[in-house]
Amino acid sequence: MATLAKSSADGSLADRYRAVRGLSLAVAEPLSDADATIQPMADASPAKWHLAHTTWFFETFLLRDFLPGYAPFDERWSYLFNSYYDGEGDRHPRPRRGMLSRPSLDEIRDYRAHVDGILAAAIDCLPPELIELGLNHEQQHQELMLMDLLATFAENPLRPAVWEALPAVAVGATPEPPRWIRGAEGVVEFGYDGSGFAFDAEGPPHRAILSPHALADRPVTNGEWIAFMEAGGYADPRLWLSDGWGWIQEQSVAAPLYWFEEEGAWHRFGLDGARLVDPDEAVCHISYYEADAFARWAGARLPTEQEWESAARGADPLSGHQLDRAGPARPRPAPRGEGLRDLFGNVWEWTASAFLPYPGFRPAEGTVGEYNGKFMSGQMVLRGGGCATPRGHVRASYRNFFYPHQRWMFAGLRLAKDS
Amino acid sequence: MATLAKSSADGSLADRYRAVRGLSLAVAEPLSDADATIQPMADASPAKWHLAHTTWFFETFLLRDFLPGYAPFDERWSYLFNSYYDGEGDRHPRPRRGMLSRPSLDEIRDYRAHVDGILAAAIDCLPPELIELGLNHEQQHQELMLMDLLATFAENPLRPAVWEALPAVAVGATPEPPRWIRGAEGVVEFGYDGSGFAFDAEGPPHRAILSPHALADRPVTNGEWIAFMEAGGYADPRLWLSDGWGWIQEQSVAAPLYWFEEEGAWHRFGLDGARLVDPDEAVCHISYYEADAFARWAGARLPTEQEWESAARGADPLSGHQLDRAGPARPRPAPRGEGLRDLFGNVWEWTASAFLPYPGFRPAEGTVGEYNGKFMSGQMVLRGGGCATPRGHVRASYRNFFYPHQRWMFAGLRLAKDS
Amino acid sequence: MATLAKSSADGSLADRYRAVRGLSLAVAEPLSDADATIQPMADASPAKWHLAHTTWFFETFLLRDFLPGYAPFDERWSYLFNSYYDGEGDRHPRPRRGMLSRPSLDEIRDYRAHVDGILAAAIDCLPPELIELGLNHEQQHQELMLMDLLATFAENPLRPAVWEALPAVAVGATPEPPRWIRGAEGVVEFGYDGSGFAFDAEGPPHRAILSPHALADRPVTNGEWIAFMEAGGYADPRLWLSDGWGWIQEQSVAAPLYWFEEEGAWHRFGLDGARLVDPDEAVCHISYYEADAFARWAGARLPTEQEWESAARGADPLSGHQLDRAGPARPRPAPRGEGLRDLFGNVWEWTASAFLPYPGFRPAEGTVGEYNGKFMSGQMVLRGGGCATPRGHVRASYRNFFYPHQRWMFAGLRLAKDS
Amino acid sequence: MATLAKSSADGSLADRYRAVRGLSLAVAEPLSDADATIQPMADASPAKWHLAHTTWFFETFLLRDFLPGYAPFDERWSYLFNSYYDGEGDRHPRPRRGMLSRPSLDEIRDYRAHVDGILAAAIDCLPPELIELGLNHEQQHQELMLMDLLATFAENPLRPAVWEALPAVAVGATPEPPRWIRGAEGVVEFGYDGSGFAFDAEGPPHRAILSPHALADRPVTNGEWIAFMEAGGYADPRLWLSDGWGWIQEQSVAAPLYWFEEEGAWHRFGLDGARLVDPDEAVCHISYYEADAFARWAGARLPTEQEWESAARGADPLSGHQLDRAGPARPRPAPRGEGLRDLFGNVWEWTASAFLPYPGFRPAEGTVGEYNGKFMSGQMVLRGGGCATPRGHVRASYRNFFYPHQRWMFAGLRLAKDS
Repeated sequence: MATLAKSSADGSLADRYRAVRGLSLAVAEPLSDADATIQPMADASPAKWHLAHTTWFFETFLLRDFLPGYAPFDERWSYLFNSYYDGEGDRHPRPRRGMLSRPSLDEIRDYRAHVDGILAAAIDCLPPELIELGLNHEQQHQELMLMDLLATFAENPLRPAVWEALPAVAVGATPEPPRWIRGAEGVVEFGYDGSGFAFDAEGPPHRAILSPHALADRPVTNGEWIAFMEAGGYADPRLWLSDGWGWIQEQSVAAPLYWFEEEGAWHRFGLDGARLVDPDEAVCHISYYEADAFARWAGARLPTEQEWESAARGADPLSGHQLDRAGPARPRPAPRGEGLRDLFGNVWEWTASAFLPYPGFRPAEGTVGEYNGKFMSGQMVLRGGGCATPRGHVRASYRNFFYPHQRWMFAGLRLAKDS
Repeated sequence: MATLAKSSADGSLADRYRAVRGLSLAVAEPLSDADATIQPMADASPAKWHLAHTTWFFETFLLRDFLPGYAPFDERWSYLFNSYYDGEGDRHPRPRRGMLSRPSLDEIRDYRAHVDGILAAAIDCLPPELIELGLNHEQQHQELMLMDLLATFAENPLRPAVWEALPAVAVGATPEPPRWIRGAEGVVEFGYDGSGFAFDAEGPPHRAILSPHALADRPVTNGEWIAFMEAGGYADPRLWLSDGWGWIQEQSVAAPLYWFEEEGAWHRFGLDGARLVDPDEAVCHISYYEADAFARWAGARLPTEQEWESAARGADPLSGHQLDRAGPARPRPAPRGEGLRDLFGNVWEWTASAFLPYPGFRPAEGTVGEYNGKFMSGQMVLRGGGCATPRGHVRASYRNFFYPHQRWMFAGLRLAKDS
Repeated sequence: MATLAKSSADGSLADRYRAVRGLSLAVAEPLSDADATIQPMADASPAKWHLAHTTWFFETFLLRDFLPGYAPFDERWSYLFNSYYDGEGDRHPRPRRGMLSRPSLDEIRDYRAHVDGILAAAIDCLPPELIELGLNHEQQHQELMLMDLLATFAENPLRPAVWEALPAVAVGATPEPPRWIRGAEGVVEFGYDGSGFAFDAEGPPHRAILSPHALADRPVTNGEWIAFMEAGGYADPRLWLSDGWGWIQEQSVAAPLYWFEEEGAWHRFGLDGARLVDPDEAVCHISYYEADAFARWAGARLPTEQEWESAARGADPLSGHQLDRAGPARPRPAPRGEGLRDLFGNVWEWTASAFLPYPGFRPAEGTVGEYNGKFMSGQMVLRGGGCATPRGHVRASYRNFFYPHQRWMFAGLRLAKDS
Repeated sequence: MATLAKSSADGSLADRYRAVRGLSLAVAEPLSDADATIQPMADASPAKWHLAHTTWFFETFLLRDFLPGYAPFDERWSYLFNSYYDGEGDRHPRPRRGMLSRPSLDEIRDYRAHVDGILAAAIDCLPPELIELGLNHEQQHQELMLMDLLATFAENPLRPAVWEALPAVAVGATPEPPRWIRGAEGVVEFGYDGSGFAFDAEGPPHRAILSPHALADRPVTNGEWIAFMEAGGYADPRLWLSDGWGWIQEQSVAAPLYWFEEEGAWHRFGLDGARLVDPDEAVCHISYYEADAFARWAGARLPTEQEWESAARGADPLSGHQLDRAGPARPRPAPRGEGLRDLFGNVWEWTASAFLPYPGFRPAEGTVGEYNGKFMSGQMVLRGGGCATPRGHVRASYRNFFYPHQRWMFAGLRLAKDS
């Protein structure tokens, strides 16, 4: 397992297991069975499915593989709740996940309780690295669950506000233009080399060379994005990658996802319902194509993932922006810069780097090795994380990845330039 | 309204309103909110949507149009629950009906109660013909709701049995080959001319000429269909209409919908779960293309709708097979011939006739005139009705219609031949 | 063969063979090899393919089937030039017909000469009914070839004029409004019962009943169509069949096919290039959906095929409008009413009737029986014919058929009404 | 222009212009007008289009931009023959390029002669860098023309052999297993820094760090590929990237493109017709997904483009394998290793690197800047080149790029491994 996951030492594993598993239930707390059943598009999954799939992961790779004689909660469910592990046999087609009114949300809560009970009792007999992997896996699905719920409720013309909005943050003034922070140059170390948990794709550690460059000290804001729109950014093919230009034509894209114009003003739909777009907040729900076009329009470019990681190493993420164990599971409104000069932890930030293996990368043996490696084509790396990201997943080496047209995740951008 | 609907005289209208509206709720009784939310394909709608749409029909064309000052239960719902009445403005796109976890099933039950209460109180001030139309409309949706629920649960690999099966009917012996009943010849009268309710497309009454012909005295059975399959019926292009052959190739169709082979035997999924195919029952869930190919293989043809109506006039439908007000709302298993010589009321029967207007047909004035006329292209007429059809909808003049490839309704066939 | 084709008595069969086959070559005369290779859409075929397929028909059903020892010109070509006869084995997929630069147009001319030579020498040993069928088949392909060439050149932004325009016809004045001609009522005879050739679907003769009605004495003109467009006809859903409304939305249809607006005036592209729309000509290249919507807008309806046939029986087609053997193969501009009161032979006229078998219809035995019967679903009947229709194919009993959305044929409409 | 193209010094530019332009005509020499008109798929273009588009490039960016008063050969052709330069206005939709039977191949030859005549006369007044760019552009289209013609003729069931096969090369014995050549490590220089022509994306020069690794001394052969197929390589999901597995399922891919099995043996269709697969030749016409899966099956990986370039620097390409000015334009059969230990110039070789900008990359100003930069998303880099590649395009720094599913180019692979 060493190449896949490095075990975490902080806190009792049993405590951590309880906390992470509990947070998933807390996120799902305000949902009806019907809310948790809908699949808004093929890329997304029902909340119920996330709750069951993460449980199936523990049931399969821990209880089944390490507890002799363990009988599955329901042997027919492996077909339903396997995501993409070809090593685990056939599975329900992904685009049909929204067809499952049964099992109900309550039955899936029972499933979770059943697996949690047995795992807690047997925790000392189970490989801690795999438990740690399962918890990190579950945390990824917590964020996916929030993304997918936003996509779900956004399909509803009634625009329901399922979570209360956070209290507004007092802001003194419009953010100043970003300042440019000069980055490191020459040979630099990259990749996770710590002692805690990291996904296999974050390593192995290796060196690369950075050219002279600078990064903006904060992400691009909604106000800046509106300026891009008003300058005709979505209508000028010279700003766009060829694939991106084709995509905005075909999909009639002219604003970030979840934005709509009403009575002359831009609004956005969020997990707290529909609200006016706040010009000071970091722009969110944009595709790679849009991020790239904006950067070109601004006379800048996107940072490479090495430039990003080099700047983030040693820095602390923004506090109080991420999903955590203590507070209510209520997601926060799209994150804002608030005048403060933040480096990361506000929104996922598109980089100019394709999601490809680091030198010497080797996936884990066995089925869990299907975790990251097989997705290494066609996707771009995002760094950072924000309001829907579990706190522990906001770290300098973390590599998130999506296709260039996707934008239902909480993704924005930070500018870079050669210097 | 005279061209659209003729009023019904049997029973108090208020009683009938209560009975019909109650049956819809009874049909939906075993459903969870999630069950009632799923849309299994663009042709079908969620159960919740049927319950709300039929209510919207009464709210819009009765309460809003005839009760001055009536305020809608929720003014945003018209957008959600209008089906296809262009005269009523924009509406939620049909293929996205499964995205609506809100309003919940309980809220829609409240909506029904609200509209029912006001309508009951005001019933004497409202046009009885429109109430009658609304009730017949609701009965159509009761059958659609059952069809759509079957399509929904069929998508679930767990094959849930939501309703109990009916007790098996004792059958003495395999049905004998069908007998041929000679039909009327020459000039015959057609079209609804009674005093009860009928849809506009059932009239006006008119004459047509019938050639010498005969009809089978019962529908084709599952056993006969299996013989067709075993004789290679799905693999011989000479039996098929050109469009039908293209369709079975593209869709890989080789058996009726909801059939599957397991351990060497054909099973079918139904509202009572998965069961062995009963060879004596009428075959069901076949497309027009399949019905037509079977008839060609059998050296026969499908009846025209005039031949069918001529034979059914004066006959009584099979008793005890249809959905009715008295019994449990529980749908029955796919209907069976049971050795008895039945004319109709067992399954919908594909005819050889396109759904086109009768001579002199004229749709009703206003929005309700969009009811039937605008669907008069590309569809074929079915006659009869069965286990999912409300009792009053099984009558000799009733014209049901579907596209030739559709088969999620309870549709079979009866053979005809020239004589 | 009796049910498929009745033999023709006029002129020597050998003369007629030469004339018909020669006309196909004359139609293709101005084409380059490249012109004859392009397939503009799946519904259409390259000119080269038409020339080869009609030859394959004679080679297969005459030379191969009746001349012992006949060796095919090239045995690999049957795969290429069989259209849809499943009885003749596998064939090249229809949508890929435009991929065949080889054989060249010259090679196909050689193929024609080869088959024509042998057939001419052996004509007395071959069944005349099948030769007659082959000639009628070829005539149908002459019209298809012109339709498909128009679709081909319409794809070329240079708008080439491959044929010269006919000299303009002097017209005194704008056509008067159509006059209504009262039709026959009661029991009337239909279907081909003559002694010449007719396709199987034109019979058998039978009786039907006509309600009181009247037909317009001429087709709808371009000027009338422009009035419909200017009145918002393409934007009012109440005028449209549901399928038609979906189709115009999806395809952005707002004018007849091949029309375009330039400098404020409507033009049409035709086989003689791009020209101003002539308001007096019969409107052409419209779908069934459009014809039906126009009729509804005009407070009228489309005639049934029985009404049409009843009026056309005994009448002579317009002279000088059809494709004939004597003149140049040059197609004429879209036909015009010219003030004269014409009944038919100007444009194909959509009827309100689905293409379904007449009572007692039975396709011919063997592969040629695939000719018409297997297309009897989903299509509507057109009657009449015009500038691209070979003269002998303009007769009262002729049933042409297309899907309701198709409009690359020379199709217009004539109004009818109940009276 | 400095960032886009560095001028070439070898030979007179006028001579070189004549030679390159002449080679395009020589490649097209055996084609009929129809051959040159077909577009076999949206990714490919007709030969006629390539001949015209390359001419349009010179006409537009040289004659029009630098010769005052130059009148275009046909002003309507810019719409037809602009490929993707948004700066040059609207253009004919790419998927409809096969609809243009007019202009004819002869007219396009006239167009070429016209432009060539004027350009030759004015060559001293025109910027040599742009001429050089135009020539390199034309050479790219020479290879595309051959790829697209192969795709065209492969659509023809007659499998025409348009070019003669080259004489067979005598081969002593089956190739030995590849030997591993250890690559450079540590900080290495990359990117074009020579004085001849290079495309903008080949620079700027920069440094990167290489990990210890080795490359195979030759590409993978057909015989090795057959071993992969026989070992079930196309049926084992564990070998495939997730996108690749989806792609082979959806497209039913189970062998290289243009391969087919007949009488128990694998054949391939090529520009010299259909032949048995030669096990010693380099495998060709495979996608990135297939290359990646093969490498994983072989316990190896694909090289990065830096590893590849580092090995190729200083090496000479294989002689006699590329398209050149002297010999007949006849393309050679798929290239073979012939036992000799070749480094590159045999087939394009997929690398593990995404096509992204080098540090400091900046596209040229103006419309020609649309050349490479806007394609920098979603594509992978290929290095090398072979039988269809013009000789001067086989150089160590050249970056070719295609989407991971594409395989109509002459693409194979070379293995790499960590060491």
